Amino acid sequence: MAQPVAHSYGKDAVSVYRVEGDRLFACEVRLIARGEALESSYTEGDNSLVVATDSMKNFIQRLGAAYRGESLEDFLAEVGERFLDRYGHVQAVELSAEETVFARRAGSVLQRLYDDRSVAEATLGADGTRHERSGRKGLHLIKLSGSSFAGFVRDEYTTLPEAHDRPLFVHLDVSWHNADYSQRVAGEDVRRTAIEAFDEFDSASIQHLVHEMGVRALARFPEIDNIAFRAENRLWDAAVETDGVSVFTDARPPFGVITLSLDR
Amino acid sequence: MAQPVAHSYGKDAVSVYRVEGDRLFACEVRLIARGEALESSYTEGDNSLVVATDSMKNFIQRLGAAYRGESLEDFLAEVGERFLDRYGHVQAVELSAEETVFARRAGSVLQRLYDDRSVAEATLGADGTRHERSGRKGLHLIKLSGSSFAGFVRDEYTTLPEAHDRPLFVHLDVSWHNADYSQRVAGEDVRRTAIEAFDEFDSASIQHLVHEMGVRALARFPEIDNIAFRAENRLWDAAVETDGVSVFTDARPPFGVITLSLDR
Amino acid sequence: MAQPVAHSYGKDAVSVYRVEGDRLFACEVRLIARGEALESSYTEGDNSLVVATDSMKNFIQRLGAAYRGESLEDFLAEVGERFLDRYGHVQAVELSAEETVFARRAGSVLQRLYDDRSVAEATLGADGTRHERSGRKGLHLIKLSGSSFAGFVRDEYTTLPEAHDRPLFVHLDVSWHNADYSQRVAGEDVRRTAIEAFDEFDSASIQHLVHEMGVRALARFPEIDNIAFRAENRLWDAAVETDGVSVFTDARPPFGVITLSLDR
Amino acid sequence: MAQPVAHSYGKDAVSVYRVEGDRLFACEVRLIARGEALESSYTEGDNSLVVATDSMKNFIQRLGAAYRGESLEDFLAEVGERFLDRYGHVQAVELSAEETVFARRAGSVLQRLYDDRSVAEATLGADGTRHERSGRKGLHLIKLSGSSFAGFVRDEYTTLPEAHDRPLFVHLDVSWHNADYSQRVAGEDVRRTAIEAFDEFDSASIQHLVHEMGVRALARFPEIDNIAFRAENRLWDAAVETDGVSVFTDARPPFGVITLSLDR
Repeated sequence: MAQPVAHSYGKDAVSVYRVEGDRLFACEVRLIARGEALESSYTEGDNSLVVATDSMKNFIQRLGAAYRGESLEDFLAEVGERFLDRYGHVQAVELSAEETVFARRAGSVLQRLYDDRSVAEATLGADGTRHERSGRKGLHLIKLSGSSFAGFVRDEYTTLPEAHDRPLFVHLDVSWHNADYSQRVAGEDVRRTAIEAFDEFDSASIQHLVHEMGVRALARFPEIDNIAFRAENRLWDAAVETDGVSVFTDARPPFGVITLSLDR
Repeated sequence: MAQPVAHSYGKDAVSVYRVEGDRLFACEVRLIARGEALESSYTEGDNSLVVATDSMKNFIQRLGAAYRGESLEDFLAEVGERFLDRYGHVQAVELSAEETVFARRAGSVLQRLYDDRSVAEATLGADGTRHERSGRKGLHLIKLSGSSFAGFVRDEYTTLPEAHDRPLFVHLDVSWHNADYSQRVAGEDVRRTAIEAFDEFDSASIQHLVHEMGVRALARFPEIDNIAFRAENRLWDAAVETDGVSVFTDARPPFGVITLSLDR
Repeated sequence: MAQPVAHSYGKDAVSVYRVEGDRLFACEVRLIARGEALESSYTEGDNSLVVATDSMKNFIQRLGAAYRGESLEDFLAEVGERFLDRYGHVQAVELSAEETVFARRAGSVLQRLYDDRSVAEATLGADGTRHERSGRKGLHLIKLSGSSFAGFVRDEYTTLPEAHDRPLFVHLDVSWHNADYSQRVAGEDVRRTAIEAFDEFDSASIQHLVHEMGVRALARFPEIDNIAFRAENRLWDAAVETDGVSVFTDARPPFGVITLSLDR
Repeated sequence: MAQPVAHSYGKDAVSVYRVEGDRLFACEVRLIARGEALESSYTEGDNSLVVATDSMKNFIQRLGAAYRGESLEDFLAEVGERFLDRYGHVQAVELSAEETVFARRAGSVLQRLYDDRSVAEATLGADGTRHERSGRKGLHLIKLSGSSFAGFVRDEYTTLPEAHDRPLFVHLDVSWHNADYSQRVAGEDVRRTAIEAFDEFDSASIQHLVHEMGVRALARFPEIDNIAFRAENRLWDAAVETDGVSVFTDARPPFGVITLSLDR
């Protein structure tokens, strides 16, 4: 006998571009629904409680039209609360959103950018439980000098030389939890703090670096009680070294991945 | 005060192409290490217990040279056990691998393929705990007729018409747990069962379809005690309908996501 | 003063999935129109002769519904001729198509594949001129042994060692011209000939290899009077060498590109 | 008999990151060589005149170390001239480069950006011929209002409604020719002119828009004698319309492509 132990369904990559006069609110949303009542759609093909994912898309886009705010967090909260209200048989809704970034370049002309961006996620239960998290994704930063990596384990598997002043290139995602979701730190400020820490701190490793970023963020922003990092080591390979000048090249694919979660 | 509550580090996208005469074993591996002893690398920049991720890559590739088997599962087990043996301060190692698929086309000529492929994951603890899972990823299947989606919730958010005989296009990932990892079902057989279920079963939804696939697999393969699915709905949009002929076009991005986990 | 010296417009990435019973014809088409009469749409914003690119898409999809053949070439010819007939002010139409590959896996279940595929291109002029070409794209082949690269220029810029028996990995695109477009060689046969040449021929370089492929194809297929190749060198990097076993890894990005066009 | 009618070979995707103190010059280069003397490498496997593409990479990176300028154009000229000087049997070298964009965010910290970027191309012949071109690629711009598309051909293939005030989203590549390559227009200025034209001009189509951009650029920059555009129409689809607010969604893949080349 086969026994369902977990199931979920929803809609991913729902793009929302809300235009009101000269204002644009743009993001991409995912909505996943969970609920025991949906089990019969799997086991019996009974669709009577299935909200089509196409309808979920419509739901998100109509709430987008009504939404007058600017934050991903409030939009997700609105979508989640209204979805649970509307569909009483759904037990939990998991939401995430990613900012689609535009920068104003002239009166009514905006440029679509593909760099770092805000993200948010929220899980709302019909029982009132809520887990929310904010973040910033895709921050690709290089510090040309002032980073080292030495004193690590040297054994029969080691071929990497020690580095005492290497250009350090990291792909960085940061996320954090605001103790009170109505009083949230500005993501731009967390971003700035991470960049400052990178600039000012002589790190002994990426581990060391993200810890410093986290310590500074927790010290500076009383709003947050947890901050987490995911960093990829995207160090270039050295190609040419002459006096005072170095030429590097993109590294081959394998890359290091470092994570850290810090509570206050 | 900042308190580390979780951390990990490792190497991703380590490609291994092992050639011995005319035989090729090819995969891409990720190795992530965890351990309390590593905390000081974050907090103090103390690298004395840090195995460089470059060394992890060397470790994987050298074990690749020594590995004479053909399965991802045995290779991951070998890497994981040896890594824990070698580095006693590491408490757990999380591994995953994805087959890099080649098909022999002539004597010594192989073609690199980009379709469905085997995957495996394993988490090994220094305390002897083991979690292992096998799977098949990237199976993109269409059934031209015999699928319906009707009887779902119709309300103010619904614009999707009912469909009684639609071409159903799914992107499918399947994974399963073998009760005894020395007696594993062949992934090719699970794949064949999923395709057969798709062909023979008139489904009322993707939920209904993956449940049927799972029920059949659990019935047919006593080796496995859990099977899980992740399916994306990649249905085409209808463009032209004439008598007996339909022309469809790629759908726009938002897509449905359906998951199910079934125990025996 | 600004003087238009060239202009064109059209629609790219038009997907066509034609379903008739159990048969599927699937491709992606690009259509570009040229004509002096269209100049005023640029200079004056005069759209009176502009066929919207959305209408071009409709045009392609409706001809897709009517098309009963199986070849990209005949479909492009049909689209091109009909488009020029319908819109007399268009002087030339440039078309290209790429097969969207599916393989039947069971009765009515097909698998979408992402490997090598047929391509075709055709430029039709209102004055009756025609340029047509067929091809096969995305053939990623490795020969594990029997390829060398030695005797090349050694100078102050050379760091590459000579290789006398290297695994040779190429990404290969082939295209050819049929002397008479109503008697075309089967693309599958050209593909097979390229693979055979790779297997049987001990090449001194990729240049040498594609020449041999071309010579064989011209000798074997009297239908074609030109064949052209574009090959990327995707050689792996050596990571571990032990007795009889080598482990390789994906190369870093820079890759060689080799082209050759051969007439009969 | 098979007769070579064209051939070339070279290296693509050569990344160059030149670091000198706090300065970074970063780009990706392609170098393709042509020459009759290379024919025997194809026909005979004679590598005696083949400069390995790996050596080409070294050549580019070493010239990168020596290069003290900041423009792609001068770097390509340097690489091309030196390559032809060094290898007398090469008849022509085709070069292209794309800026790898970084923005300074703090003292020594730069952010890698993925938006619009400078490009350049140059073909240098051993006989002294030179073709050079500069450009800007990947400018993705939206104008929220003030664009129309109406009065186009309406016939049996037309389903698109007329639009009198639509958000117009274009992916834009621009390139131009400087009459005298030692007196080049700044790419940033061309970029600004394109954005201003977009903002100020009520266009009747993308054709109309790129023409206006070109007319303005030729009028403003006496340095250039030709400017060319490639624009993709990436218009969003309307999803929700309420009073004063519209919600749009990403369009499905088929997209319009518009090109224009303007001489002075």
